Amino acid sequence: MPPRLLDPLVTADVAVFRVDDVRLQVLLVRRALEPFAHRWALPGAVLKPESDVDLEATARRALRDKIRVELPHLEQVGAFSGAGRDPRGWSVAVLFYALLPRDRIDAVVRSRVEALEWTDAERPGHRLAFDHATQLRQARHTLREKVEHRALPLHLLGERFTLTELQRVCEAVLGRALDKSAFRRRLAGSEDLVEIPGAFAHGRQRPAQLYRARDGFVF
Amino acid sequence: MPPRLLDPLVTADVAVFRVDDVRLQVLLVRRALEPFAHRWALPGAVLKPESDVDLEATARRALRDKIRVELPHLEQVGAFSGAGRDPRGWSVAVLFYALLPRDRIDAVVRSRVEALEWTDAERPGHRLAFDHATQLRQARHTLREKVEHRALPLHLLGERFTLTELQRVCEAVLGRALDKSAFRRRLAGSEDLVEIPGAFAHGRQRPAQLYRARDGFVF
Repeated sequence: MPPRLLDPLVTADVAVFRVDDVRLQVLLVRRALEPFAHRWALPGAVLKPESDVDLEATARRALRDKIRVELPHLEQVGAFSGAGRDPRGWSVAVLFYALLPRDRIDAVVRSRVEALEWTDAERPGHRLAFDHATQLRQARHTLREKVEHRALPLHLLGERFTLTELQRVCEAVLGRALDKSAFRRRLAGSEDLVEIPGAFAHGRQRPAQLYRARDGFVF
Repeated sequence: MPPRLLDPLVTADVAVFRVDDVRLQVLLVRRALEPFAHRWALPGAVLKPESDVDLEATARRALRDKIRVELPHLEQVGAFSGAGRDPRGWSVAVLFYALLPRDRIDAVVRSRVEALEWTDAERPGHRLAFDHATQLRQARHTLREKVEHRALPLHLLGERFTLTELQRVCEAVLGRALDKSAFRRRLAGSEDLVEIPGAFAHGRQRPAQLYRARDGFVF
């Protein structure tokens, strides 16, 4: 029995989501190191107890070191544990998810990983390392439940957005079309949206009022 | 710096809930051993990688060893981590909750803990060890969200129950009264309830139809 087995490995993984037009996408990295070198995975890192305050700090460090991105808000999905999920031995991974606006993607640069890819969150085009396919499914489920019942995923939008853009983002998360009037009624009851006076988006249709998240908004 | 700090401690804790008349209660144990000896806490155990398949197995072992109870269903709440939450060093606790029918409480006997107590889940009568006050708050929140939006907490009831008893249990979980007709409409759409033909509860009122959870029901 390898000694590792008595010394559980603790890691943090992150499902970073964005909405590209009408699809929910997740960020994958191609691993440079073993285990699972050259395989696609959710970004993550092994806990450094001497420097990480908690596992959310581990997750933030993973994103900072691997894809040079600072995320405003991480939400915990849950823990995945057991002897079989990591070839290095008994392990516990705590999974978080993050929501990224589409206009932030240029800030993502390559480092410490072989490649990056935004892929369909429902059907990623790669076989994932570890139990990351299960983790991704659980992260999607947690995000959907929250948007279905309680919260607006405003972190997926830019600083200013129209209500139509907000509806498209919610539809992408939920994977289904929403009735416009019912959606507008729900928005009317939300304290998280703030109308920007005199600001309008000018597209092919008539000018649309622009909104922003209220100060201090947390998903 | 003690060596423990580089070797994170991994534990599983459990919030066991029941409903006593109209209040949601949680099971506390008075710890026999350090750290926090003689203090009240949620039952839990340190991971044994050589025998535990995963952390849910650790949680089940904690309940079996400490209060001699086998629980049908555990649900994960989340992970609590950091250098400050356990005096033994950097630690990760994964919290689960379990729902116990009231008629199962006689099966709980004392062992490996100094004392057991069912206490109000909202306002436990003791200052809890570790970060267990935070853990308990999070477990209550997770349970409530689930009952509010999606699921019937049938594990809190005995094998046969009336719809009025079910409503009382839901009200205890949610901490508020429910409108009877709206609640009955919600139940009408549920596939988890099965009417027991010819079985009625006879109380002070007219006989009430008895129900059971459908086979294979999982909260």
